[in-house]
Amino acid sequence: MDNIRLINIKEAILSENQDLANEIRERLARGKVYMLNVMSSPGSGKTSVIVETIRRLKGAHRIAVIEADIESLVDAEKIAREGVAAVQLHTDGACHLDAPMVQAALETLDLRDLDLIFLENIGNLVCPAEFDTGATRKAMILSVPEGDDKVLKYPLMFSVCDVLIVNKTDYLELTDFDMKTLKERVARLNPAMKIFELSCKTGLGVKEWCDWLESDMKKI
Amino acid sequence: MDNIRLINIKEAILSENQDLANEIRERLARGKVYMLNVMSSPGSGKTSVIVETIRRLKGAHRIAVIEADIESLVDAEKIAREGVAAVQLHTDGACHLDAPMVQAALETLDLRDLDLIFLENIGNLVCPAEFDTGATRKAMILSVPEGDDKVLKYPLMFSVCDVLIVNKTDYLELTDFDMKTLKERVARLNPAMKIFELSCKTGLGVKEWCDWLESDMKKI
Repeated sequence: MDNIRLINIKEAILSENQDLANEIRERLARGKVYMLNVMSSPGSGKTSVIVETIRRLKGAHRIAVIEADIESLVDAEKIAREGVAAVQLHTDGACHLDAPMVQAALETLDLRDLDLIFLENIGNLVCPAEFDTGATRKAMILSVPEGDDKVLKYPLMFSVCDVLIVNKTDYLELTDFDMKTLKERVARLNPAMKIFELSCKTGLGVKEWCDWLESDMKKI
Repeated sequence: MDNIRLINIKEAILSENQDLANEIRERLARGKVYMLNVMSSPGSGKTSVIVETIRRLKGAHRIAVIEADIESLVDAEKIAREGVAAVQLHTDGACHLDAPMVQAALETLDLRDLDLIFLENIGNLVCPAEFDTGATRKAMILSVPEGDDKVLKYPLMFSVCDVLIVNKTDYLELTDFDMKTLKERVARLNPAMKIFELSCKTGLGVKEWCDWLESDMKKI
């Protein structure tokens, strides 16, 4: 296999993607729209966290969700039930969102009508970390049943994100997940990372997370 | 972006990978070695299922594990504690195992000393499904906290695998995971898929899974 050729193409794609991502981010900033790229493993609760956040913030902010999925409509239907705009992006097998896909989705939305856009990425802790989508901030969700060692195993994702939401904390007492160990591991890799502990089932921590998000929205 | 060029390169890579995977599979069959490619999301319990299976089968079979990880040694250390050979493959950011990586790992093992090799893939429900590693069979693990809708969202993985292990069934009563719905969804997509329900914590279902694996090993 001609690895050098492959690497060059990958670099070219990433560089072209980065240019477009920067353009998207500037356009959003000019329009005072905050876009959050939400990443996690499959089943960590991206849609649930987004739904809980929408319920708390939709009175005060105009919200839309861009849903990436390889081929289903499952999540977009859940979001649409919350009464906010949902755009479904089918990646047709692709394992991550990139800036061109996000730009295509943004063209279907009128940014003048929006304050906040959630970008729900494909469930994958590897590939989405490599692609800037133009989002204002990057958040990742780690659910307690996945274990506290994921920082060691998927370090790029933990390095590139601004915020970590530890979800499904209602499972804490059933597992050997150690929150202190997790926080130490995160601090070594990405000391600036904000950490929120959440349970979408019990509602614990949802307010703290939403308060931070609202305060961060004011910074753009 | 010149998509046509990209697709051609992807096809060339997949085709070259397929040829090598077929060679690996034939070589393993000649040596009467059964190799199982184990795939799942991060934190679904690949290492735990492999450890439980080793404990049950190591008296009767000579076992080795090839551990893929982006950069850590966490899983290989757990496996080594079980007293079987563990080969650590660092994929250096890559999101899946391919046949050349597996061939490199196999070169460190003497196949004459082995009956069974577990290939623990990178935790990812998307990319590993696309690459044949040369394994005799493909197994995937879905853990109960991930939800029963994953069949709809990651259909390729559910289509290419021979066996589905539903792990962490001890969480069943805490979630809205519906086993009947899951099985119906799997049956529509991949009717030949064998399904085992397991809990590595309680030991439930481990014997049934190991019995099937032993019987399947006799078929090569």
